[in-house]
Amino acid sequence: MKQIEVIPVSGLPEVNEGDDLARLIFDSLGRSRITINDDDILVIKQKIVSKSEGRLVKLADVTPGRRASALAKKHGKDPKLVELVLREAVRVVRAGHGVIITETRHGFVCANSGVDQSNVGRGFAALLPLDPDKSSRRLRHRLEELSSKKLAVIVTDSFGRPWRRGQTDVAIGCSGINPLVSYAGKKDAFGYELRVTEPAIVDEIAGAAELSIGKLAKIPAALVRGVGFVPGELGVKSLIMPRDRDLFR
Amino acid sequence: MKQIEVIPVSGLPEVNEGDDLARLIFDSLGRSRITINDDDILVIKQKIVSKSEGRLVKLADVTPGRRASALAKKHGKDPKLVELVLREAVRVVRAGHGVIITETRHGFVCANSGVDQSNVGRGFAALLPLDPDKSSRRLRHRLEELSSKKLAVIVTDSFGRPWRRGQTDVAIGCSGINPLVSYAGKKDAFGYELRVTEPAIVDEIAGAAELSIGKLAKIPAALVRGVGFVPGELGVKSLIMPRDRDLFR
Repeated sequence: MKQIEVIPVSGLPEVNEGDDLARLIFDSLGRSRITINDDDILVIKQKIVSKSEGRLVKLADVTPGRRASALAKKHGKDPKLVELVLREAVRVVRAGHGVIITETRHGFVCANSGVDQSNVGRGFAALLPLDPDKSSRRLRHRLEELSSKKLAVIVTDSFGRPWRRGQTDVAIGCSGINPLVSYAGKKDAFGYELRVTEPAIVDEIAGAAELSIGKLAKIPAALVRGVGFVPGELGVKSLIMPRDRDLFR
Repeated sequence: MKQIEVIPVSGLPEVNEGDDLARLIFDSLGRSRITINDDDILVIKQKIVSKSEGRLVKLADVTPGRRASALAKKHGKDPKLVELVLREAVRVVRAGHGVIITETRHGFVCANSGVDQSNVGRGFAALLPLDPDKSSRRLRHRLEELSSKKLAVIVTDSFGRPWRRGQTDVAIGCSGINPLVSYAGKKDAFGYELRVTEPAIVDEIAGAAELSIGKLAKIPAALVRGVGFVPGELGVKSLIMPRDRDLFR
């Protein structure tokens, strides 16, 4: 009987490049009198991680190439933004209805390569962290140092999905937690072998945290407590479907 | 600051066709001394709902047609199971690597039309409820009657997704809760309009519940408490991407 709690982390200041984000989170928790426990999972939105890593781009500084200009015109988008989207992408997966869906350098398939203009200030766009697993690891190490507790960190972003409306938060980076739980070889109560059952718990945890984070309040992080997980450093990169097994390439 | 709790519902007996599932859940909660509050969300796995609705099929009674036999042979699967998968489907979306991905009559795109042999006993397969929104509504009404509280119900199943390994639990039916939160027209702290932001909270709640439910323990349901939501009867059917907006058909 695992009871799970999702505790929002509020009161963070505006974050700038080079800030010690783990310290800011640790101090915010302290001010809210929330103590970090062993095996807590700190879930944090990509945007604030990108800000701390200097992944903001001033759109005025971007010169759109020919491909970006053509794509922007066709889909009614800002050519400078599309230029950034293409720079972050290895391929365009679909484009239509004002949306460009790409595969990012990390292997994520999402709208606009994760490039986003919300919560960054006018004239700017935020790019995804270069290596979100590494960002997670860095945050985890520093938070463990500050708290003297053992924890996991998940960096999240909101992704759409095919065939279904709306977005859910998913993990784009993680550290200290294995992203998949494998039931391979395990049997159900009737002796039936659960061969293909592998819950992607980091994505479920990302979604759970979003429920308390929201989009408007200044709550870019949450502590998730009570989830049973296996520590590990496989990272979200291990969740990317290998090309030869991908039915949707 | 919304703190969220996920409380597993354990101690349910094996469920059979015609059982008053809401009553069984209510009694299990009572035995665990868990009181239902207003605005709690009862999340329940599809399998147990299907069982109570008589959606189990004895495989020995299924005669595979020609198409099922051919598909089964090609992908190394049981022809009787494939026959059920095709009966539940409106089209085969992809097939390969021992997996058949279909679009169900409800409009869900998932492996095997949601037909599943785990936790049902040898020689049987469970089909998805015919109308999971209706199943949710029925459960909600009965639970509200028993508890005298106002709540929401979400019926869930584990779905894979393109490009990413593993499965997450998603909502296949809901009642008493609007599946999407719309931020359309709302502005961020910088005045930027969040036009396309619509978190599919029922899916995030489904995933959050799965974290406490697991696959092996007899915990087919959880109460999720503390999530802000808008009551409504749009159902999960309103989450299905309309054909003319679907870039992935």
